[in-house]
Order: sequence, then structure tokens, then C-alpha cells
Amino acid sequence: MESLRVALGNRAYPIHIGAGLIGRADLYRDYLSGGSAAIVTNTVVGPLYLEKVKKALQGARVTEIVVPDGEQAKSWETLQRVFDALLAARCGRDTLLVALGGGVIGDLAGFAAAVYQRGIDFVQVPTTLLAQVDSSVGGKTAINHPRGKNMIGAFHQPRAVIADLATLDTLPERELRAGIAEVIKHGLALDAAFFQWLEQNIDQLVARDRSALAHAVRRSCELKAAIVAADEREAGSRALLNLGHTFGHAIEAGAGYGTWLHGEAVAAGMVMAAELSSRMKTIGKDDVARVRALIGRAGLPVKAPPLRPEDMLALMSVDKKAAGGKVRFVLLQGIGKAELRGGIDERAVREVVVAAAQ
Amino acid sequence: MESLRVALGNRAYPIHIGAGLIGRADLYRDYLSGGSAAIVTNTVVGPLYLEKVKKALQGARVTEIVVPDGEQAKSWETLQRVFDALLAARCGRDTLLVALGGGVIGDLAGFAAAVYQRGIDFVQVPTTLLAQVDSSVGGKTAINHPRGKNMIGAFHQPRAVIADLATLDTLPERELRAGIAEVIKHGLALDAAFFQWLEQNIDQLVARDRSALAHAVRRSCELKAAIVAADEREAGSRALLNLGHTFGHAIEAGAGYGTWLHGEAVAAGMVMAAELSSRMKTIGKDDVARVRALIGRAGLPVKAPPLRPEDMLALMSVDKKAAGGKVRFVLLQGIGKAELRGGIDERAVREVVVAAAQ
Repeated sequence: MESLRVALGNRAYPIHIGAGLIGRADLYRDYLSGGSAAIVTNTVVGPLYLEKVKKALQGARVTEIVVPDGEQAKSWETLQRVFDALLAARCGRDTLLVALGGGVIGDLAGFAAAVYQRGIDFVQVPTTLLAQVDSSVGGKTAINHPRGKNMIGAFHQPRAVIADLATLDTLPERELRAGIAEVIKHGLALDAAFFQWLEQNIDQLVARDRSALAHAVRRSCELKAAIVAADEREAGSRALLNLGHTFGHAIEAGAGYGTWLHGEAVAAGMVMAAELSSRMKTIGKDDVARVRALIGRAGLPVKAPPLRPEDMLALMSVDKKAAGGKVRFVLLQGIGKAELRGGIDERAVREVVVAAAQ
Repeated sequence: MESLRVALGNRAYPIHIGAGLIGRADLYRDYLSGGSAAIVTNTVVGPLYLEKVKKALQGARVTEIVVPDGEQAKSWETLQRVFDALLAARCGRDTLLVALGGGVIGDLAGFAAAVYQRGIDFVQVPTTLLAQVDSSVGGKTAINHPRGKNMIGAFHQPRAVIADLATLDTLPERELRAGIAEVIKHGLALDAAFFQWLEQNIDQLVARDRSALAHAVRRSCELKAAIVAADEREAGSRALLNLGHTFGHAIEAGAGYGTWLHGEAVAAGMVMAAELSSRMKTIGKDDVARVRALIGRAGLPVKAPPLRPEDMLALMSVDKKAAGGKVRFVLLQGIGKAELRGGIDERAVREVVVAAAQ
């Protein structure tokens, strides 16, 4: 087991990475002083791991909350079901909530923890690659709104993240690849050497080589933890982690939540961001080709679904990064070097959107 | 105008108190850099003050969101309407939300601000005495759940509180008295001299003497601001402000939200808390009599509505202050000296509940 630390003062917390961690009672014990816990999971992950986690929460009164699988669960209605279950079980402020699942469960359960009785403790137990390398770290929680993804949410840091690499063995192929998209994002946005490592090791990652996965998870968490520690609430550098997300969120919303996986949409979004950067002359066509090639080799989409460009553009304008009504973009100054830019030529954006839809 | 300050580091903010403040553009200007604002108000307060506030938000694009009056508006459904309106108007993260109204509007709009796009700035413009002396200060925001009051919420501090004493002129009698309940609470829980001042000035307060109101609002805000600065998230001393609330919340929920005003329920709850303190021998019967007398002189209820004691006790056990399943109480060690106590004899609680229902 390796442990990193997200340095956030009195809200600092560890990220534990290793195989077989999910059932280790010692990793939960410190957060169970209230004697009450609630596990939020879904119908796919629950049957695989719920009992193991429950057993690890030794001595605590445990409430099980199993919600449907899929992005649709990041909804107002499912959130309400979580609250209903917590209240029916009379869970108090000292209840530990355990988010057991992928990014959807982490976002949903994390947001529930953020606002249940004005905030309770929670632990992230991510069981997908995407959640392990990205969504479980950093305290972003949210549900979706029909008008946009993650529109309702909170910054609420977990007490700990327990990333069990063994859970990736049961991950469907498509979700593994979607997670690799966020791994690529960390390299592309922040670390050229890591991007290069990915170019050399992408086949091992796709083949679930455990040492390759361990390195990818650890390096992604390191990069993300440093960004989060410097800019918890996304006032500055944290926005760089949204590389590909302005396009990606529009793709997800336009295709209908759950049709495209988040990582797939981000993958296509990163290619579009690279294209836009190239049109803005901040990177060359060879860099765009490298991005496209790596994403393609990971088995991820390199172009958007067939949406009307007008719809894409409209969806992008409600994106949270819109400042004063204008969309700001995370662009590339080079491989491993993202920057946040406003005042982007609308025509260039439109051209990228039109080209990507073809 | 007098201005106090809630000392919360980089989230510190001013409370402005005076007559005629609501339309002063200079009090809003600093928070409008994004150029976008949304005013959340209700069908009673809106017609009186919406235009004035709108005019004061000079130069900003203003979205108006008018919700129904009453405690029922602190609901999941109304919250969703606020989000729908913000998104329909394409309000971004840099939108300033203005909560214009009483405690319900402050709680609802404050919570909307806490979670809209993971948190936007907001300004409290309380137009009831209750909101001016209590709910607008300290960052507690929430909506209700059928199983309990304020069960879903967040700590989200406003950027400023603008308490316009002139708005109290239009306040219905019953709501004025409900606000006085929270004023009494501040004296009873924290400041014996202020309690004594209230015993001497209660008639002037009920008669809306402006200088009496100014003193009551200022002293209440001072007391509350000091507590909030020391214990923002209610890990300790802030719980003392819940004097009367364990009983009060159960009364509100049992009677049906909106039947009793919050302040009325807290008034009866304070008498019950005093009774319980007397049974626990921490105060004498003469102190209970002083509490009952002052609350009675304010025209507030000194006993609970006719609820079955079993129902009251069940409602109390889901109160947020329940720790490890056991209800903790804010009791009195004397006038002006509240304390948080666990391990209260259940029989004594039951006796108080039974007596109060008769």
C-alpha cells in the first residue's frame, strides 16, 4: 500500500492505493467514533463489494443504500432517496457515509454527505479507474440538472480515499478505457513526462497490467492532489483539470446523460481542445496528432457524436466555466502544459465543433 | 447605520444595521463584479421591496425569482424552481444571489447559493425581525424534509448582511413577536444583562419603538457574531444558540410546518427547556417563572400545542443534535448561561413534554 496526502490544513486527508484495501478495517476505524455508518453503492458494485466493506466497518451500525447504476443516478430523485434512507435509519450528524462505487456514486454520495444535516463525514472507496484517478480526490461533489452536468453540488472533502486496485479486475472494458481518458488528461494538462510514459505504456494499461495501473493511479493522484492543495475551490489552477470538459460536458448533455461515459466525452473533448489550441496557434499540428493518437490507442473516441453544432454551442454556454456569460477554455500551450483562456474567437470554436461532428 | 463584523478570516463579512439601507447601492456594489445578480424573494416581500433592491443593483443584469410565502417554501420543490430559474437565465458562477425576505427566504436562497454550481456569493437582506437578529447571520442555510426541519443544508456564509430596520414597519404583528422570541433567546442563553434589558423594554419592542429595535437587533447580532466566529460549524458553543430548538423543532414538525411560526415554537421550547433545567436542578423555579413571564409578555406561547407526547418524543429523537442516537439538550445553568448537556434523564424529558401538552 502506498499513501499520499492531500494537503488541506485541518481538512487534509490520505489517499491509500494498493490491492486488497477495501476490506481493511484499520483504514476506516478512525472515522467511526460515532458508531454509525451508511454505505451508498449501486446495484452493480453492491453485490461485489458491499459485504466486504460492511465487515470492515467493525462494530458500527451500518445502513445500506443501494441506488441504480449509471449516470442517471446523479439526479435530484436519487439524492432524495439517499436522504430518505438516512433519515429513516435515524442517522445523525456523526454518521460516516461511505461512497462505494465509481464517479457517479462518489459524486452523489459525496454531495449527500455535504448537505445531509449541513454536512457529515465521508470516505471515498472508488471502484473504477476514473474514480480512483480523478473524481474521488479533491472534494468535488454534484448531481446533474437537465440543463447541465454537475450544476448542483458542493466542495466537500472526504476524510480518506481508499483506492483498491483489485476492484479494477471486475471493471468492464469500456469503463476501464473511460478511466484512462482522465489519466491521459493529467499527463496532457500537467506533466509531459507522464504523457510520454503513457505513450509507452498505453497497451499495458489497457491490458490491466497491475504495476502499470499502480503507476498511473499514483501519478494521477499526485498531480491532482497538488493542484487541489493549491486551489481547493477552483479559483485558479484547478480549472486546468477541466481540460476537455467544456466540450465534454456538452457532448454528455447533448447525447443524453449516460449515453456517453464521462471519460469518453472528455476524451473527445480533449481532442477538440487540442484542435482549438492548434487553431489559436498555441500548439502545433504534430501535438494534436500525438493527442489524437494516444486517445485512439486507448480505444477512446476522438470525435464528438453527431450533434447539431448549434446545440453543442448552446450547451457549452451554460457550462460552469462561463464567466460573465463568456465561455473560457482550457487550452494547451504544449503537451503537459494547459492554460485557462478567455476571449477565444467564437468562429474558431464553431469550426472545431463543426469539424468534430463530421 | 452601524456595522458589525463577523470575524471569519477570509470569509469575514459585515452586518449593516439601520433604517433605509435596502436601497443603498454602495452596500451591494463590491459584490457585483460579475455583472449578474439574482434576487430571490416571495410573493409578500417582493411587491414591497423588490424594485428598491433591483434599483440598488445598478448596472447588473438582474434575474427575479419570486417564490410562495411561508415555511412550505423551504422545500425540495421550491429549491428546484430556484435552480431552474437561475439556469434558464444562464446565471454563471459569478452571479450574486440576493436573499430578500425573512428566515425562510434566507435559508432557501442561502442554500441555493451554497450548492448552485458548487457555490456562489450571496447577500442577506433580512426583512423580518427574526431574520435580522438570527437566521441571516452565521451562514446556516437549509431546507426542510418531511421527517425533520433543516435536515438538508449547508454552512455558507453571506458576503454581507443588510438589516434595514425600516422594513420592520411592514412586518405583521405575529411575525414581529416571533422575532422577539429569538431576541429573548440570545439574552436567555448568553447575556443576563441583555435579558434584564428585555424585561425592562419588552413593551417598547412590541410597540416597535425604533431605538429599542435597533438595540435589540444590534445586541443580538453582536452575541451571535461572536459565537459564530468562535465556532462556525457548530462543533461546540454554537449549539447554545439552539436553546429551545430541540423542543421547538418537534413542535413545528408535529404541528405541521407553517402552522406554528419558528419563533413561536422556539418560545414554547424555551419554556420547556427552562422547565427541564429546573427538573435537573440547574436553575430554580423563580428563573423558570422569569422566562415564562417575559415570553408571555411578548405575546408568545408558553406551552406546546396539543400533540401526543409519544409523537413529540419521536420527533425529538431525529433532531440533528442527536449524538449516537441520544438527544442532547441545551439547558440553563442560569439566566444568560446556557450549556449543552447529554445523558438527560428520559423520564424528566417525558414529564416536561406531558406537562407542556396540558
